[in-house]
Amino acid sequence: MEDEQSAGATATTSGLGKHDNGVHDNPEVLGSTSNGISSLEQPLLRRNTTLTANHLAIVGAKVSHIESLDYEIIENDLFKHDWRSRSNVEVLQYIFLKWALAFLVGLLTGVIASLINLAIENISGIKMIHMVQLVRDKRYWTGFFYFSGFNLALTFVAAVLCVVFAPTAAGPGIPEIKAYLNGVDTPNMFGAPQLIVKIIGSICAVSSGLDLGKEGPLVHIGACLANLLSQGGAGRFRLRWKWLRYFNNDRDRRDLITCGASSGVCAAFRSPVGGVLFALEEVATWWRSTLLWRTFFSTATVVVVLRGFIEVCRNGRCALFGEGGLIIFDVGDVTVNYHLNDLIIVTLVGVIGGLLGALYNHLLHKVLRLYSLINGKGRMAKLALALAVCVFTSAGLYVLPFAVPCTPCDPALGAACPTNGMSGNFKQFNCPAGHYNDLASLLHATNMDATRNIFSTGTSGEFRLDSLLIFFAIYCVLGLFTFGIAVPSGLFLPIILMGSAYGRIVALVLQDVARIDHGLYAVLGAAALMSGSMRMTVSLCVIFLELTNNLLLLPMTMFVLLIAKTVGDAFNPSIYEIILDLKGLPFLEPNPEPWMKDITVGELAAAKPRAISLQVVERVSTIVHVLRNTGHNGFPVVDRPRPGLSELHGLVLRSHLVAVLNKRWFLTEKRKTEMWEARERFSAVELADKSYKLDDAELTQEEMDMYVDLHPFTNTTPYTVVETMSVAKAVVLFRSVALRHMLIMPKYQGPEITPIVGILTRQDLRAHNILDAFPNLANKKMAQ
Amino acid sequence: MEDEQSAGATATTSGLGKHDNGVHDNPEVLGSTSNGISSLEQPLLRRNTTLTANHLAIVGAKVSHIESLDYEIIENDLFKHDWRSRSNVEVLQYIFLKWALAFLVGLLTGVIASLINLAIENISGIKMIHMVQLVRDKRYWTGFFYFSGFNLALTFVAAVLCVVFAPTAAGPGIPEIKAYLNGVDTPNMFGAPQLIVKIIGSICAVSSGLDLGKEGPLVHIGACLANLLSQGGAGRFRLRWKWLRYFNNDRDRRDLITCGASSGVCAAFRSPVGGVLFALEEVATWWRSTLLWRTFFSTATVVVVLRGFIEVCRNGRCALFGEGGLIIFDVGDVTVNYHLNDLIIVTLVGVIGGLLGALYNHLLHKVLRLYSLINGKGRMAKLALALAVCVFTSAGLYVLPFAVPCTPCDPALGAACPTNGMSGNFKQFNCPAGHYNDLASLLHATNMDATRNIFSTGTSGEFRLDSLLIFFAIYCVLGLFTFGIAVPSGLFLPIILMGSAYGRIVALVLQDVARIDHGLYAVLGAAALMSGSMRMTVSLCVIFLELTNNLLLLPMTMFVLLIAKTVGDAFNPSIYEIILDLKGLPFLEPNPEPWMKDITVGELAAAKPRAISLQVVERVSTIVHVLRNTGHNGFPVVDRPRPGLSELHGLVLRSHLVAVLNKRWFLTEKRKTEMWEARERFSAVELADKSYKLDDAELTQEEMDMYVDLHPFTNTTPYTVVETMSVAKAVVLFRSVALRHMLIMPKYQGPEITPIVGILTRQDLRAHNILDAFPNLANKKMAQ
Repeated sequence: MEDEQSAGATATTSGLGKHDNGVHDNPEVLGSTSNGISSLEQPLLRRNTTLTANHLAIVGAKVSHIESLDYEIIENDLFKHDWRSRSNVEVLQYIFLKWALAFLVGLLTGVIASLINLAIENISGIKMIHMVQLVRDKRYWTGFFYFSGFNLALTFVAAVLCVVFAPTAAGPGIPEIKAYLNGVDTPNMFGAPQLIVKIIGSICAVSSGLDLGKEGPLVHIGACLANLLSQGGAGRFRLRWKWLRYFNNDRDRRDLITCGASSGVCAAFRSPVGGVLFALEEVATWWRSTLLWRTFFSTATVVVVLRGFIEVCRNGRCALFGEGGLIIFDVGDVTVNYHLNDLIIVTLVGVIGGLLGALYNHLLHKVLRLYSLINGKGRMAKLALALAVCVFTSAGLYVLPFAVPCTPCDPALGAACPTNGMSGNFKQFNCPAGHYNDLASLLHATNMDATRNIFSTGTSGEFRLDSLLIFFAIYCVLGLFTFGIAVPSGLFLPIILMGSAYGRIVALVLQDVARIDHGLYAVLGAAALMSGSMRMTVSLCVIFLELTNNLLLLPMTMFVLLIAKTVGDAFNPSIYEIILDLKGLPFLEPNPEPWMKDITVGELAAAKPRAISLQVVERVSTIVHVLRNTGHNGFPVVDRPRPGLSELHGLVLRSHLVAVLNKRWFLTEKRKTEMWEARERFSAVELADKSYKLDDAELTQEEMDMYVDLHPFTNTTPYTVVETMSVAKAVVLFRSVALRHMLIMPKYQGPEITPIVGILTRQDLRAHNILDAFPNLANKKMAQ
Repeated sequence: MEDEQSAGATATTSGLGKHDNGVHDNPEVLGSTSNGISSLEQPLLRRNTTLTANHLAIVGAKVSHIESLDYEIIENDLFKHDWRSRSNVEVLQYIFLKWALAFLVGLLTGVIASLINLAIENISGIKMIHMVQLVRDKRYWTGFFYFSGFNLALTFVAAVLCVVFAPTAAGPGIPEIKAYLNGVDTPNMFGAPQLIVKIIGSICAVSSGLDLGKEGPLVHIGACLANLLSQGGAGRFRLRWKWLRYFNNDRDRRDLITCGASSGVCAAFRSPVGGVLFALEEVATWWRSTLLWRTFFSTATVVVVLRGFIEVCRNGRCALFGEGGLIIFDVGDVTVNYHLNDLIIVTLVGVIGGLLGALYNHLLHKVLRLYSLINGKGRMAKLALALAVCVFTSAGLYVLPFAVPCTPCDPALGAACPTNGMSGNFKQFNCPAGHYNDLASLLHATNMDATRNIFSTGTSGEFRLDSLLIFFAIYCVLGLFTFGIAVPSGLFLPIILMGSAYGRIVALVLQDVARIDHGLYAVLGAAALMSGSMRMTVSLCVIFLELTNNLLLLPMTMFVLLIAKTVGDAFNPSIYEIILDLKGLPFLEPNPEPWMKDITVGELAAAKPRAISLQVVERVSTIVHVLRNTGHNGFPVVDRPRPGLSELHGLVLRSHLVAVLNKRWFLTEKRKTEMWEARERFSAVELADKSYKLDDAELTQEEMDMYVDLHPFTNTTPYTVVETMSVAKAVVLFRSVALRHMLIMPKYQGPEITPIVGILTRQDLRAHNILDAFPNLANKKMAQ
């Protein structure tokens, strides 16, 4: 994928204030670039170009040049011939491979998730046990330095890996996956370095006690695995297996990455149906019934692997690995009875959850803007930021428990209170015998254990209100300031921690009227905050259903989720949309803006430079010139069979032209090749190879004077719209059919009319870009 | 909707062997109809028309004329003006109403489902108690006649209602809903008579002991409610509320009917997430994220209503209504441990389940073909068939328990064995004290109770193998012969009954190696057979998860479902697809056939008569002539601004033309109306009114010589394709964007070229119809 960026002319890019050498997929460069290359088809009147596009985006923590993906099937002669000549055996190979890869994605995601859990539980377990011992010996300062030092070292490893080897592995990766599945190629996102850094970085970052989860990284790991499997490996170590060539296209890779993302969610929450629904509701843009089934197959595999792993680690065979942080909250045996009072409180939980979620989104947006300035200053700045956040976190986690008094143990609990190990609800910490420190129970544990403690049922008297308020406050601050640092981090767990504390606080404040267990309120609070921030409903609901294993809680969870989402939507978009926007990823929204009905694609095309088109039999020099001087990824091919009659023959891709030049498939005279001739000389597999580069061609002057017959390479059936089509409808078409280029045909039929009016790409159809060019449209009122 | 069929010319229809007066939405009539009307634009060479379409289908149990739905937004001048003039208050009204209607759909579906359950439990309860009493008194013949008579009377009521008042209410209704959401209008399907007949008919049919469920009918009831609510009521009693005019379009109605269908599934299985997923996986064709949320809101409402109802009926306050047939199988407290043996057996259950499911589909297909011949003979034949099946069922249910010996009760069970009431696992029937008849426990109960009995855990010794075999055999026969009769019937329960018996038989045969509880095997057997027949995975899995309330069973359920579906798919399509095909509903499949790549839309258009187009300013007499003599629902509008230059202005709908004629919006001279003039004279609301009829217009000769300016009514932005587009891509576009008409533009640009090549509709893009016209395509090999 990196190859797509290699060739090309200098293009003016805006937005992030940087200039970059790169390839564009919309024909806007000729006639408008700063180096003043003259247009090939001189327009009589140079139009005032206003529709601009930004081709830079932040992928992970790295500013990258982005491209669109070719999800559309390029139906050219060679492809059709190749497709027709496929034997039934090859078709079966393809189907088998599709399923085998889905299985492998699930299997490997399950294994890696298990190993990550194992590593985290053991590393942070060792850390905790020593730290607790030092505190018990009253060596408070030694304990602090041990704790902070340990965390700092872990964070350092995670951050260095991220900063030096794979900047795109920072953050959760979910926005980038969402963009990829929407059709935006995010370079260096799904490779082997990303996978390795993500795994090690995630282990270190979570073990270091930072307020982040492994959920987002697991989704990214699933997607990386899917991509690597579909390519047969990474870089030089790539398998050149013949079967894999069927997967050498963006469509099949997209499907597999969807499976990978679902597997990741499933591995994070042990929630197979929730994983599928998460992919469906939040991540994927296009969805088919068959994909539902394949995704489900992957997540089923993950669940079986995780189950097997827990079985193996039962009875302490995996050192400090207990329940593996997998079943977070099983309340399958709790009977829930609804009372009117509780319904009112639950409504309150939903409303406040929605407000808090929206506020969190708003503040996180500000923090991320600030962080992007800091991170922009270079590697050292990124590293310093990560370490600073780690020190702050360690200090907070270590010191705060000293601020609350000890609580005497309830004698009914027996040996369960107090404890000194790494887990347990009642940590003794610095307290005398028979007492426990409730805040230490929450702060001196892995995030996963903290969640389990705060979710636990039948413990309504365990936590003091002031401890919960301190916990909530520190995790609000940490949740805002941890997310943007350059380590692999997930958003789920911070929000769950905040939300569960918030739920318990509400239950404690209203304990005279609240009759449901406080642990359940913690769950509802977590659900409310997640819904208020992430704005998912069905998938969250299923994830919570599968986490709690209690169907009776379902109606209440639904209720809270719906209220929180509604309240949140009144203020700002979901956190993923905010991040996508912040990163500058050109995500195509599902619904067109209302004002898009008031502008036609013709008007849009008029605001761009004229499209550059090629003749069906074109001189090599012209092709080279066009490729060198424009950044477009697709060129309309026109034909003039006889005077007065013209035809839009189709669309030819840059990558195919580059392959043709490299393979020197030239003709000495200007003629059309015969079908059989073309098929003998050209092969669809060679054409699909994207590793060719324009500069490698090194053509002689003699070759430059030769011709290329574009007939066999031209996609003769591109999707077209008439210039009078409203942009609203064009956007629906563009997104529904997953296009990269949309050709605009003239409205009139007659002589002297060029058969193509223009060409639109993803960037041209984004609301933001259109509004820049046509600011008066923004005044139109809103409507759903 | 009925109005669409009123006007029109005689058309040749084929397929069901009937001729019918009706309206077509594809331009194929002129020049090819039997009454030989001359074409308006005389073609020089009359083409050999071969692409034909069938406009009849079986809706419920009635042969009806079908139409396509206008899911596309008709962007004409008036619509745009109306849309622009909408105030913010109106937009808020619309949003509020959308949610209020989704809530009402859920609420009413929940209430009706509760009432149906209440009625069924009480009616069949009374029947059973008396019958058991008669058997206890050894009055076997009286018992038989009482039992059969009771059943016969109930079946008679259900069948008469269906046959006389609402033939479309027969069957489950799910295939018709599926077709409707795919864009096929199924007339008289979602009205008030259908709703009432479905409710009463379903109560009677289920109470009469027929082998059918209330699940399918509940889905239909939800859809009917949604449709009626969106229209503000039925027929004369319709609310003319101003707000409802926003819902006077096929798009919003489609969304609401999706909510209704989900609510129905949710009400049937008390499975809110399963309901949403069922709609997503099986029923709906188009799906948006926002719809996911709204559907979920509806099902959440249903669950709350059902819960409230169970709460009210607790402690026997609803007579014989026990647990309401809602929680069928709660095994939340059973611990499942997997062993390798079980995995092998479970695989076996899946494979055989898939085979049995495919066999069931095959046989049901044959039976339905036979039944359609019988049902075609008239009302009395339908009635006789229903009654015959009822007599056979009653005889079987009553007599068979006598064939098995009595089993002594396990003393450990205490008072639970034997029982004489309507429920209970151990029915005494004709046995001496301390004994029970295991077959009577299954057959002398409502289908719901039978399922509960056979699913019950910890009862591995309860059922004898011969009893289970008899039960399985009789329900296989009944399942095949009951479905097609003219009463409201669901497919879920018959398959669940068959499958659970099959699962128990496997467990009993292999009891030496099987370690899981036999009740769980019954569940797995039911899942396998459902998946083998219906081929759903994710939604079935979630439904079973919500039924069993046991997450630990999930991986195994998944495994069985995937295997059974894979095996079943190797033999035939899913049962719903078979029924859709049998009924002749023109369902558009999600994926194009592989051979569709080898034909272009231009070739398809050439196999049809020429499209009839109108001028932008057209004579009234021409419009009347076209409307009278063709059945098309859309006409291309062309313009010739100056000689040699032509333009495809857009598409005008038949319903709009009829409204224009009725409102007499004529011009005395041939001129274009000004924007302001048009907006003053015409209103978008009047235009959208579909109740106008062509014959009501009664135009004078003077009026016939006047003109109509079509500018304000023409949808200027129809979706177009170029004639070289392959049919495969055109099908994807047609289905993705939910079109009714697809206009074909010429490939060449030049003088003397007409701006429109043809027009394609749903019927033209169906694989079956294309293969009729181009039989050579069928020889191409298959590929996925």
